[in-house]
Amino acid sequence: MRWIRYTAADQTTAAYGILEADTIREVRGTPFGETERTGKTHRLADVKIELPVVPPTFYAVGFNYTEHIKKIAARTGVSPDLPTQPDVGYRANNGLIAQGEPVIIPRDATDSVQYEGELVVVIGKKAKHLSEADALSCVLGYTIGNDVSERSWQKSDRTLWRAKNTDTFNPMGPWIETDVRLDDLETRVSVNGKESIRFPTNAMLFGVERYIATITRYITLYPGDVIWMGTDGASPNLKAGDVVDIEITGIGTLSNPFLAEK
Amino acid sequence: MRWIRYTAADQTTAAYGILEADTIREVRGTPFGETERTGKTHRLADVKIELPVVPPTFYAVGFNYTEHIKKIAARTGVSPDLPTQPDVGYRANNGLIAQGEPVIIPRDATDSVQYEGELVVVIGKKAKHLSEADALSCVLGYTIGNDVSERSWQKSDRTLWRAKNTDTFNPMGPWIETDVRLDDLETRVSVNGKESIRFPTNAMLFGVERYIATITRYITLYPGDVIWMGTDGASPNLKAGDVVDIEITGIGTLSNPFLAEK
Repeated sequence: MRWIRYTAADQTTAAYGILEADTIREVRGTPFGETERTGKTHRLADVKIELPVVPPTFYAVGFNYTEHIKKIAARTGVSPDLPTQPDVGYRANNGLIAQGEPVIIPRDATDSVQYEGELVVVIGKKAKHLSEADALSCVLGYTIGNDVSERSWQKSDRTLWRAKNTDTFNPMGPWIETDVRLDDLETRVSVNGKESIRFPTNAMLFGVERYIATITRYITLYPGDVIWMGTDGASPNLKAGDVVDIEITGIGTLSNPFLAEK
Repeated sequence: MRWIRYTAADQTTAAYGILEADTIREVRGTPFGETERTGKTHRLADVKIELPVVPPTFYAVGFNYTEHIKKIAARTGVSPDLPTQPDVGYRANNGLIAQGEPVIIPRDATDSVQYEGELVVVIGKKAKHLSEADALSCVLGYTIGNDVSERSWQKSDRTLWRAKNTDTFNPMGPWIETDVRLDDLETRVSVNGKESIRFPTNAMLFGVERYIATITRYITLYPGDVIWMGTDGASPNLKAGDVVDIEITGIGTLSNPFLAEK
């Protein structure tokens, strides 16, 4: 099932609906609680797609695919250092934008602005002390994230706040798919319609189950929390005018243009 | 003026009020929008004090006082490395607890669980591209935070998620004071009633104005966001049964007991 959050022309606030092919079936409530179909429908092409969720906490995993770690290490001139345990990090909601909204490249960014195509886990239920075997029981579904990164700031700053969390640097969407077999997924990234990388989405150093079990040993996950699972490979430098499409098979395609700050 | 968020015996949800001596004057609305006095009052001793705000984003500054950087470096066996620019970090709301609520020390924590007494800036207005001269215009007021830290995890993990953001590791409160002259503040920390450190709160490497100007160059601050400003000195190891009081003169005293996980 696909949960979409959207604003129709006759709505003033965003609503959730169930997306079936190109038809949205509106519901009252949210997928994090009770919902009820209203009977109203919209065509997908007629609505503004909104963020699939505004997360209470925005978790983000770094260094979770071997090739990515090696390539980032080579670029920054250090030896690759594979993590030995799953340590999660955070981003903040200021950076989130929805399907189709533009990533704004700051005036003082260097030319090393790059995409990172990521699987996003959407938590559906409050969870603490889950085992790996039970970990997926708290998951509502999956969406897609683009963890846009300015590599010179990633190197110069002590934290990632500016390199990866500048306003508009965190596109997420287009919707939440609940019927997912993680091993079946493939991530495919295109720039201006030309594919630049594809990789098996679940070929992670530490998978979704391991991360959820580790986090919930110490931290309570809440409905709507998201966990961005990291990326593989390396990206070309992006410039104003580029459009980045991140497809994860079975989920959908997140598409965002890049523009220059005025 | 002091904004307090509380639950009275006859309330089912938290409300804001204005604290005058020991009397709370209830308002409709929140200090981040319009408020109106209801005429109702409570005695401070009769209410449960709640978190002064549930922040959209929880920013936290590390390494912002010279003595603290030197002491942490000595303990972890590296040379002290003074930051050359203000790079902010994040925590998550799962760790937040209110005045009087217990910090729960996890079963597998080592004995190096410590306090960090911090000034907390509470943002009142949406802000982007503020200069240092205008930075304080977006500030509603100030409260107090205890950035509880497990030092062995701080050393072993790639990020601070577990060392500083385990559930209950982020006491904040007791209320928001709007009338503050930063240079007048002194932070005083006591363990079980015995003072363990005092330091001038504003003797920071990078002050509140500098941090807000730097953050808002790239990131939009929103009403209710909080920025924890770091701490000075070093803490003794804490154990179950200890009570930590963090006073910042002119604001108040944040007091929390420490208990062991069952």
